[in-house]
Amino acid sequence: MNARDAGAGSAPPRDPLSRLEELARALRCLPGVGPKAAQRMALHLLQHDRDGAQRLAQALVDATRTVRHCERCNTFTEATLCALCQSNKRDATQLCVVETPADLLMVEQTQAYSGLYFVLMGRLSPLDGIGPKEIRLERLLQRASDGVVREVILATNFTNEGEATAHYLGELLAARELRVTRLARGVPVGGELEYVDAGTLAQALRERRNMGSEP
Amino acid sequence: MNARDAGAGSAPPRDPLSRLEELARALRCLPGVGPKAAQRMALHLLQHDRDGAQRLAQALVDATRTVRHCERCNTFTEATLCALCQSNKRDATQLCVVETPADLLMVEQTQAYSGLYFVLMGRLSPLDGIGPKEIRLERLLQRASDGVVREVILATNFTNEGEATAHYLGELLAARELRVTRLARGVPVGGELEYVDAGTLAQALRERRNMGSEP
Repeated sequence: MNARDAGAGSAPPRDPLSRLEELARALRCLPGVGPKAAQRMALHLLQHDRDGAQRLAQALVDATRTVRHCERCNTFTEATLCALCQSNKRDATQLCVVETPADLLMVEQTQAYSGLYFVLMGRLSPLDGIGPKEIRLERLLQRASDGVVREVILATNFTNEGEATAHYLGELLAARELRVTRLARGVPVGGELEYVDAGTLAQALRERRNMGSEP
Repeated sequence: MNARDAGAGSAPPRDPLSRLEELARALRCLPGVGPKAAQRMALHLLQHDRDGAQRLAQALVDATRTVRHCERCNTFTEATLCALCQSNKRDATQLCVVETPADLLMVEQTQAYSGLYFVLMGRLSPLDGIGPKEIRLERLLQRASDGVVREVILATNFTNEGEATAHYLGELLAARELRVTRLARGVPVGGELEYVDAGTLAQALRERRNMGSEP
């Protein structure tokens, strides 16, 4: 039996499931989604949630069209300046430097910080050819030298690359009469010494704090 | 500083990151994607792969518009009949019954089957209100009674619901002078007895096979 006998209509004969395969392939642009998960997602959407698939398509188009970088702090926004940079409720004397917008959101979730941010959109990584120019550190230096910022809090990751970035930035910024601080390292809240890695514990020992009033 | 001073242009002030949040919310229609993973995916797409996001949007639109069910076997296709049902290279005397298109693809991957398929698009699940009508078993009975099919291979899952579905179908089909078979149960290829669960091992004992020539 061929396509014509089967009444397949005017559509040219195609590979079986080809649009489905295209969808599965396209889903692999998502981080952490391999071929098996992509196929499962594609089948799930077609079988159970075509409305969700349409909404997702629209959200992807809307976001890629409208989301850009804040001209002041570099995070994602739809306006020229992000809502945080526009707010007059934030303490403009503090500037927290993070690697990514996700890190910014994490710091905001703590509700323990009311200053402004600068998002590097990366980190120094000489092995990958990412130097000070690639993450445009001169923009951060300019931002930190606006005369209002008094303290720069370096909140890059505690990975090798994040630490190197913080070290490099620390030296550059300290030369400009700014207070430069780094997030504290140590045992996590709720952490049990037995299960904390030795490196973290060593750091917590070295940077131990006085209890009660300072001597 | 308010939005106008900041030169935010004519766009009305919006929630921070709102299109981004909409995208993250929309990504949660994907199976196995929680709020944290959805946010990570949204940020990744905007930061590193806007082209991929556009392609994904297009693939979603294309697939939801064009993919429908094969009129004969119920699997996903873009034509009236799927490529397998259209093929004249398949053995039309064998009909393999599976729960989902993903199961069909798995059986095809074995390259050990050259017959046709019928996809239930579900399983009997009385507790969820899914009975013989909901998965339209009468369509399968009609399909299996075309006079060409000689053997129906029940390849539903070996879960409680899949087994119940196979049992129910087996009784219905056996009354129609069809050979009805079920996939073999037993120790998986490469399986070590020490790590096989007791239920599987018991089944493999009960359904043990003669080695060499039958007596």
